[in-house]
Amino acid sequence: MSSHATMEHAFSLDAWMGVRLQRVERALEAWITADVPQGLDHGAPAALVEVMRYAVLDGGKRLRPLLVLAAHEAVAPVGKPCDEAALRAACAVELIHAYSLVHDDMPCMDNDVLRRGKPTVHVRYGQATALLAGDALQALAFEFLTPPDSAVPPAVQARLCGLLARAAGSAGMAGGQAIDLASVGLPLSENQLREMHQLKTGALLQGSVLMGGECAQSSSANAAALGAYGAAIGLAFQVVDDILDVTADSATLGKTAGKDADNHKPTYVSVMGLEASRRYALALHAQAVHALDGSGLPDTHALRALADMVVHRAH
Amino acid sequence: MSSHATMEHAFSLDAWMGVRLQRVERALEAWITADVPQGLDHGAPAALVEVMRYAVLDGGKRLRPLLVLAAHEAVAPVGKPCDEAALRAACAVELIHAYSLVHDDMPCMDNDVLRRGKPTVHVRYGQATALLAGDALQALAFEFLTPPDSAVPPAVQARLCGLLARAAGSAGMAGGQAIDLASVGLPLSENQLREMHQLKTGALLQGSVLMGGECAQSSSANAAALGAYGAAIGLAFQVVDDILDVTADSATLGKTAGKDADNHKPTYVSVMGLEASRRYALALHAQAVHALDGSGLPDTHALRALADMVVHRAH
Repeated sequence: MSSHATMEHAFSLDAWMGVRLQRVERALEAWITADVPQGLDHGAPAALVEVMRYAVLDGGKRLRPLLVLAAHEAVAPVGKPCDEAALRAACAVELIHAYSLVHDDMPCMDNDVLRRGKPTVHVRYGQATALLAGDALQALAFEFLTPPDSAVPPAVQARLCGLLARAAGSAGMAGGQAIDLASVGLPLSENQLREMHQLKTGALLQGSVLMGGECAQSSSANAAALGAYGAAIGLAFQVVDDILDVTADSATLGKTAGKDADNHKPTYVSVMGLEASRRYALALHAQAVHALDGSGLPDTHALRALADMVVHRAH
Repeated sequence: MSSHATMEHAFSLDAWMGVRLQRVERALEAWITADVPQGLDHGAPAALVEVMRYAVLDGGKRLRPLLVLAAHEAVAPVGKPCDEAALRAACAVELIHAYSLVHDDMPCMDNDVLRRGKPTVHVRYGQATALLAGDALQALAFEFLTPPDSAVPPAVQARLCGLLARAAGSAGMAGGQAIDLASVGLPLSENQLREMHQLKTGALLQGSVLMGGECAQSSSANAAALGAYGAAIGLAFQVVDDILDVTADSATLGKTAGKDADNHKPTYVSVMGLEASRRYALALHAQAVHALDGSGLPDTHALRALADMVVHRAH
C-alpha cells in the first residue's frame, strides 16, 4: 500500500461530516429565529418563522453546506473548520435550496406532497404561507451573509452575496427551473438536458464550492479548480438523482419516487438509458477528481470524499 | 415672501423627478437582461427574463427608487445625482417591490388580475412562471447590489445587501404579508393595523431611504433622521393607499379599486373612518418633515417634495 493510499485511508468522511453537520444544524437552529420587532401585537411574523424552520430543520442531506465547508478547508486547511464566514455561507446556500424546494413542491409547480419524509409546506400550512415562507427564506439567506459588526470582512460578504445571487437567479437555479417547466413532455437532447441541470441544480452546487473558496479569499487559480470540481459534481448529482428516481423507493428517498417518469419529465435515464447514465456519473466523478489532482489546493480530502458520496449515495 | 419660501419654490419636483426617473428606467431596461450563458440550446431562461421585464418595466410610480436617490442626495448633495451605488440601490428596491407584487397577485394570495393597467403576471404567463419570475427578481436585486469590479466599495455593497434583506424578510415585508394573510376577516385594532403596515409596506420604504443614505456612507445621526423620515412616510403611504382604495376608481389606480373592502381586509378607512384617516396621513406627513427639520442633512428639498407627493397623490 502506498503512503498516498494510507493517507487517503486515514481520512474518515463520517468523522469529518459528523462535526460539521452538527455545527451547521446548530447554526440553522439558532439563526432561523423570529428576529421580529419586540412587543408586536401580532404573532404572524413569528408564525412565519416557524414555517421557515419547518422547511429547513430536521431534514436534508446538507450536501451544499458540506461542499461550502469542504471547499473552504481545501483552500485554508490551517483555519478553523467552520469559521464564521464559512458557516454563514454554508447555512445561506441551504436556505436557498430549502426555499426552492418549498416553491417547487407547490401545486402550480411539481405538486408534491412529501418532502424529507414530511408533508410539504403547502400541504401543512397552505399555499399562501408556503409562498411567503419561501420568499422570506431567500431574503434570510442574504441576511446570513451580511452580519453587521462581525468578523467577516465586508469584501467577503459582498462577494458571497454576489455568488449566491447569481447561482440562484435567472442564469442559475431559477433559469434552470424555467427550462424544466418548458420541457415537460418534450423530447430533449442530451445536450439540452445537461444545460437544464447545469442551471437548475448545478449552479447552486457549484456556487457552494465557489463560496467556500471565497470565504478563504482563494486565488483565482484555486477558484478555477474549485469551479471545475463544482461543475462536475453538480452534474453528477443530478445524473444520480435521475438514476435513484427509477431505482429507489419513496421511503428510501424521503420523497415520491418515480415522479419524474410519471410527470413525463426528461431525465438522464429516459434520454441515455440506465446503464449509460451510470457510466456518465462515473465519468463526471473522474472529472471532479481530475480537477482536484491538477490543482495546488493543499487539502482536498473532504472534497474527494464528498465526490465519492455524491456518486455512490443510495438516496 | 420670505427667502426660505423662495428657495422652496425654486425646487421643482417635476424637474427633479424627470431626470431621475429617466435614469432609473434606463438602468432597469439595461440591467434586466438575459445574463444567461451564451449558446444555450434552451430559450427558457431568456423567456423568464422577458417575464421579469414585463413585471418591472413600463409601469409603477418608482417611489422607492426616488426615495433612495433623494436620501442619497440629502446626505451627499455635491455628489452626482445618480452615482453608481445609488442607481443600483434604486433599481434593487424596485425589483423587490415588483417581485412582491407578482407573488401577491397570485391566486393563492390576493388573486388579482390587473396591475399597473396590465394583466397580472400569472394571468399572462401562468402561475408557475409567475412564481419563478418573482423568485428570480428577488435574486436579481442582490445581483444589482454586488457588481464585480465596480466603483461601489465592497463595504457599501455588503451593507446595502444587509439593509435590503432585512427590509424584505420575515421581520419586514414578508412578515407584514404574513400578518395581512392572518388578518383577513378579523377586526384589528389601530395598533395592530399600524404594525402590519410598518412591516408590509413601511419596511421597504424606510429601507429605501436608509439605503440611499448608506450609498453616501452617511453618519449614524443622518441615518437616524432618515430612518424617522422613512418610517413616517412609509406609514403615510399605506394610509393614503387605503383612502384611495375607497375614493378612486380602477382606471385611475391602474389596479382593482375597492379590493380591500371586497376581501374584508382591515384598512385604515375601515378601522378609523375616512376623515380620521385623512387627518392621520397629514400628521404623519408632519412627522416626516419634523425629522428632516431636526436633522443636519444639507439638502432635503427632494425628500420634502416626495413627502408631499406621497400624501397628496391621486393614485
